[in-house]
Amino acid sequence: MLTLGTVKDAVNVLSEVARKTDLILSKTLLEGHEIYLKSENLQLTGSFKLRGAYYKISKLTDEQKAKGIIACSAGNHAQGVALAAQRNGIKASIFIPATAPISKVEATRKYGAKIMLIDGVYDDAYKAACEYQKETNGEFIHPFNDEDVIAGQGTIGLEILEQLRDVDSVIVPIGGGGLISGIAFAIKQVKPDCKVYGVQAQGAGSMYQSFLNKKILELPHVNTFADGTAVKKPGDLTFDLCMKYVDNIVTVTDDEIASAILALMERQKLVAEGAGALSVAAAMFGKLPIANKKTVCIVSGGNIDVNILSRVINRGLLKSGRLCHLTIELLDKPGQLKDVSAIIADLGANVIRVRHNQGGQNTDINDCFLKISMETRNAAHFEQIKNALTEKGYRITANEQ
Amino acid sequence: MLTLGTVKDAVNVLSEVARKTDLILSKTLLEGHEIYLKSENLQLTGSFKLRGAYYKISKLTDEQKAKGIIACSAGNHAQGVALAAQRNGIKASIFIPATAPISKVEATRKYGAKIMLIDGVYDDAYKAACEYQKETNGEFIHPFNDEDVIAGQGTIGLEILEQLRDVDSVIVPIGGGGLISGIAFAIKQVKPDCKVYGVQAQGAGSMYQSFLNKKILELPHVNTFADGTAVKKPGDLTFDLCMKYVDNIVTVTDDEIASAILALMERQKLVAEGAGALSVAAAMFGKLPIANKKTVCIVSGGNIDVNILSRVINRGLLKSGRLCHLTIELLDKPGQLKDVSAIIADLGANVIRVRHNQGGQNTDINDCFLKISMETRNAAHFEQIKNALTEKGYRITANEQ
Repeated sequence: MLTLGTVKDAVNVLSEVARKTDLILSKTLLEGHEIYLKSENLQLTGSFKLRGAYYKISKLTDEQKAKGIIACSAGNHAQGVALAAQRNGIKASIFIPATAPISKVEATRKYGAKIMLIDGVYDDAYKAACEYQKETNGEFIHPFNDEDVIAGQGTIGLEILEQLRDVDSVIVPIGGGGLISGIAFAIKQVKPDCKVYGVQAQGAGSMYQSFLNKKILELPHVNTFADGTAVKKPGDLTFDLCMKYVDNIVTVTDDEIASAILALMERQKLVAEGAGALSVAAAMFGKLPIANKKTVCIVSGGNIDVNILSRVINRGLLKSGRLCHLTIELLDKPGQLKDVSAIIADLGANVIRVRHNQGGQNTDINDCFLKISMETRNAAHFEQIKNALTEKGYRITANEQ
Repeated sequence: MLTLGTVKDAVNVLSEVARKTDLILSKTLLEGHEIYLKSENLQLTGSFKLRGAYYKISKLTDEQKAKGIIACSAGNHAQGVALAAQRNGIKASIFIPATAPISKVEATRKYGAKIMLIDGVYDDAYKAACEYQKETNGEFIHPFNDEDVIAGQGTIGLEILEQLRDVDSVIVPIGGGGLISGIAFAIKQVKPDCKVYGVQAQGAGSMYQSFLNKKILELPHVNTFADGTAVKKPGDLTFDLCMKYVDNIVTVTDDEIASAILALMERQKLVAEGAGALSVAAAMFGKLPIANKKTVCIVSGGNIDVNILSRVINRGLLKSGRLCHLTIELLDKPGQLKDVSAIIADLGANVIRVRHNQGGQNTDINDCFLKISMETRNAAHFEQIKNALTEKGYRITANEQ
């Protein structure tokens, strides 16, 4: 049974291996607010998952350990289990859907786990893992619906209370609910007046819907780029703990998550994955009553594929009006490139790319196009530039955002 | 005069404002090595510069404070001075070259400083700042060649000794030399057997050259994307301190810096700017004798423009053979796109973009081109794919890296 004693035991066990991650005060993420970031993205393996997996494994009998452990995951759980197994000197077989990013597969392999790449999506890998479990009788490590795993994640709650005694509220990302179950349970035992809020991606709100309807619901499909939280159905343990200990659950959009990732990079110099930025997105976009409260956001992980990160940066810059693309139609006569450049420069924008194309299928033979990419201060600044160009007679034919 | 007492005084003064940044152990940045990262990128204002500026300002007389302070910088020093002035309740006028990235100007403005945007480059802004100083008789805060500034940066050295008592070596980025002067001075007073190494960008090695030649040299020009370290000439104070306390200085290339930035993001979830990643680049690329040593790398700052970061990611991925572009010439007949895709998929690469162009100026009318971007494991993996395509008769016409 989950008790405060179990969570405290997990604190002891984890002191061998996990980092007590820093709690970082930010005054700039949300103007006028003190937001504290619990930086589990700086945890070993890049996410909190190590905690639950390691504690779970530490509780196995020698006989269970000898048979090896099995897990199924395309992401953080895989790495957490792999490192936990390595540190305990036991064999881990990790089933990963073949569609997983190469970087995550390689990271898991480096911790010495046996990787089973399974054609298809998560469900296919899960099926293969279950079959393998039956064959080998190894121990299957569930990513969230397990009391020892939950106790392991709960250690974060106790660390927060130690690092910030007068914390008012804690915001926690939710996928299957293991992280928030542990944190909410631990915090409410020690400091019941501290609020614990959950956040899910709008496209994967299985716990949100279940919480709202007070019964476990399964989503027909999930769709979010916070892939670490794309869970169709909460666990029964995690659902019960959320109903009992969590004060509220809200959702955020993918665009809000992207903005939070960008803000964490620019203002806090921290790399967060989509799931890891859910809590910050909820705080930044006013989803929760945290005015004048000392609020901790759990930045749960940082394992984002750098290719995706590159796209998130661009999307975030476009969305906030700081990176803008314009296509301008010009008459093909001398001096126009110079004139346009002057208008833009005078208004203080910074041109970063120019493409000058003569002709096109749908234009007069004389026309040519100027595609300009520029850095601007914000959306209003961009409007100002477009107005200035229009006033001078230039025709803006496209405004790719 | 710079004494250990001054540095200890700075520790006290800074305890009001600066973060004691975390020392993060990494076992993955350099296989088989324990590298500790002193995360000054997580310092307020995103760099260590706050320390020196704040301590310097705290030592000004009331009369000096009343006249206000002046600084000239396009980067971290600007933000450090601005926040330090704000916290001390005094007026700061910061001269910034108009070519500075908008994000840095806005960040400085947010700390309440008066911004003077000066047309031209750093030298022009510096000239304007000096004139303004003569007019107002305000206090000019030098970015590095000042004993109080150096003492402020030296607090990092004492923090390291407290956080890792048995440290063997510390690697420090060098621009003008303020940071390494403070750290080397402090460490050698307390633990003389601890090595202190400096790193500069190859394109801006003014202290490196001066150290080598045992006299201050001025470079005709500097060129590196580690813009925070682009200093043509060391200060006399910082040069003397380096000669006395620094064990060696090495250089790294811009490509090595880009790889270090990428590694810090992917493996440590930390955003570092070019200057901030110099130390890690030196460790990763074997520039220093740190085998079996407990080594601390100072990650001095994280204020990198996200547009540049996006380019660094791409360059790093290309360089390590993990992002590859191929242009393949095909006969324009059915099924070839499918065949090429199958060859690539079978070898485990992940196609992320395909462009299919019919015809071109220098080709037969029948030919068409397939431009493929894909994720690969490493350069050898990419070679394997190219060989497989060539064997099947496809002609690879370009291999953009």
